[in-house]
Amino acid sequence: MSTSAPARPTKRAHNFNAGPAALPLPVLERIREELLDYRGTGMSVMELSHRSPEFEAINNAAELNLRRLLAIPEDYAVIFAQGGGSLQFSMVPMNLALAGKPVDVLHTGAWTAKAVGELKKGVLHNIAASTEDEKFVRVPRNDEIKHSPDASYTYFCTNNTIEGTQYHTMPASAAPLVADMSSDIASRPLDISKFGLIFAGAQKNLGPSGVTVVIVRKDLAERADKNLPTVLQYRTHIKEKSLYNTPPTMAVYILGLVTEWLAGQGGLTGIVKRNEAKAKLLYDTVDESNGYYRCPVEKSSRSAMNVVFRIAGGDEAVEKEFAKGAAAANLVGTPGHRSVGGMRISLYNAVGQDSVEALVAYMREFQRTRG
Amino acid sequence: MSTSAPARPTKRAHNFNAGPAALPLPVLERIREELLDYRGTGMSVMELSHRSPEFEAINNAAELNLRRLLAIPEDYAVIFAQGGGSLQFSMVPMNLALAGKPVDVLHTGAWTAKAVGELKKGVLHNIAASTEDEKFVRVPRNDEIKHSPDASYTYFCTNNTIEGTQYHTMPASAAPLVADMSSDIASRPLDISKFGLIFAGAQKNLGPSGVTVVIVRKDLAERADKNLPTVLQYRTHIKEKSLYNTPPTMAVYILGLVTEWLAGQGGLTGIVKRNEAKAKLLYDTVDESNGYYRCPVEKSSRSAMNVVFRIAGGDEAVEKEFAKGAAAANLVGTPGHRSVGGMRISLYNAVGQDSVEALVAYMREFQRTRG
Repeated sequence: MSTSAPARPTKRAHNFNAGPAALPLPVLERIREELLDYRGTGMSVMELSHRSPEFEAINNAAELNLRRLLAIPEDYAVIFAQGGGSLQFSMVPMNLALAGKPVDVLHTGAWTAKAVGELKKGVLHNIAASTEDEKFVRVPRNDEIKHSPDASYTYFCTNNTIEGTQYHTMPASAAPLVADMSSDIASRPLDISKFGLIFAGAQKNLGPSGVTVVIVRKDLAERADKNLPTVLQYRTHIKEKSLYNTPPTMAVYILGLVTEWLAGQGGLTGIVKRNEAKAKLLYDTVDESNGYYRCPVEKSSRSAMNVVFRIAGGDEAVEKEFAKGAAAANLVGTPGHRSVGGMRISLYNAVGQDSVEALVAYMREFQRTRG
Repeated sequence: MSTSAPARPTKRAHNFNAGPAALPLPVLERIREELLDYRGTGMSVMELSHRSPEFEAINNAAELNLRRLLAIPEDYAVIFAQGGGSLQFSMVPMNLALAGKPVDVLHTGAWTAKAVGELKKGVLHNIAASTEDEKFVRVPRNDEIKHSPDASYTYFCTNNTIEGTQYHTMPASAAPLVADMSSDIASRPLDISKFGLIFAGAQKNLGPSGVTVVIVRKDLAERADKNLPTVLQYRTHIKEKSLYNTPPTMAVYILGLVTEWLAGQGGLTGIVKRNEAKAKLLYDTVDESNGYYRCPVEKSSRSAMNVVFRIAGGDEAVEKEFAKGAAAANLVGTPGHRSVGGMRISLYNAVGQDSVEALVAYMREFQRTRG
């Protein structure tokens, strides 16, 4: 008998949060089932020693699941780090920038701006492309990029959560490509061998917040000065298999469960079809609204992860009413980022087609009654 | 009706792990109860936006609970960080070391050695006291400390998990005291105003791994060069109330639950009595074993958190047998740290008196049959 099974039916929201975000229900149910006694150990995963065989198996499984899911080549290491993308904005140049060789940046919005903010603290860099003049309504084309001849690496953000843009083909670069993939990792198949380094907080497509995935070509990790803080060197975590210091054990365990769930969805070739169908339904609803809903993003750069739109020509009172009514209808997380306003619907892996259907039904009804 | 209540009775181990470690059962039950639907939101805590009013309330409650529990004065900030003690070994000197003014270190074992390892990468420092010559069987006395006249701060570790030592009175220092309190924070009342900065991973006495508590006198946080990486400056997290970047939301929530549970145990004056009773029972068992069990630590420095002892004069085969038999008797986590061997029993806040009673019964029986 369970000692504290919830007595009422479980309410579940349609969750469009930008991250932390929706998790698959079967994953949450599994966490709940194992919470007091992980597979006969008599302990929660959170109570296991990170040096125990049980946790080492969890850690290895999470890495292996991710390697299989993303088809990560052998010459790449997978690290489970802490500190999120914000720490990576500094760790990447600390580890990968070479003396006298600039970091090339493709500037596409708020997140690349944050990365540039850290580069400005003493790292030679070059804005090789920017769509700021066009208010970031698209990502740069390859023919616009002004590469440095000797760049340490080319830095970009594959999906821009705030601006609602996404690269649908990866930028060309002779220097290693370094990608902030926080908001679209594991949402579609990609050729990992085209990258030098990828980082991503888990809290959008891979699990809860508190663990950051770093995928790095092993030879690049050797660029780092050994005098850097030990915990800020990628090589430390490669050598120790992410167990140099106490890892965020629960978050790694959940990442393992989510990647297992993704494998069960047909892997990335399966999930990308679901993600494209969800995005198409929502963009079609926007585009077929006779301008009542309007997405500012150029079609070729539209994100399948974060759909941004304005309502009634950007009428903030109407947008507020939309969000309020949506929340009342169990549709959570529709307001846009506080820096840009409007609406933003995040459609990460764990968001179901049923949630998008509920949303577009609400959108049509909202337009019908108020539009 | 619950959709997936466990069908079998829950097994719970007596958990003596050194960290991550035991969590209070009522906390785990609460997590389980709220896992699919946090208080009517229709979302897990892990699925809430960290910018939502619900998570802001969780974050504020965790901070307030900790402030009340530890009686943290108003001029101190509380930060929930990531990266564990290992990142603090670098963040503390980055933020608090002043040019030309050495960091005084009281060296008491493996963890202060790690901190010194990071200082050696270019931070002026002075080993103001060390008990290495005595194999760290005690912490230094005040009259042994050779303070620098102009130290940036005095660094020490209040409780040494591997060596089984603990300061029972805090060291004297004119410079601000900086304490690695990872393994005994919130285990006893302390006067926070004696410290400049305290840091502690949550995974021993306060919650799961993945969140690190930093308590810092606000004026000291202003020492830091603003050119440091933004996420590595304490002032960033003070200003943003630990929401500069996405926090480890689940870990913060659980820290809030554990601190609430601790308040219900009578706060620190209540928990210290429990902790002292547990430690006394175990040390008495060791001391009354006619030398079969032997604790190498000087009585005045013995830790109430981590009780280390050898068996049968340090016979490794016997010690291995002890650990194996203990595990079979549902007594988990008895082996010492791999670097020193022997046994180590961790008695953090969530370890019950019943667990220690089960352990000492096992110890007496083990000695009777094999001693």
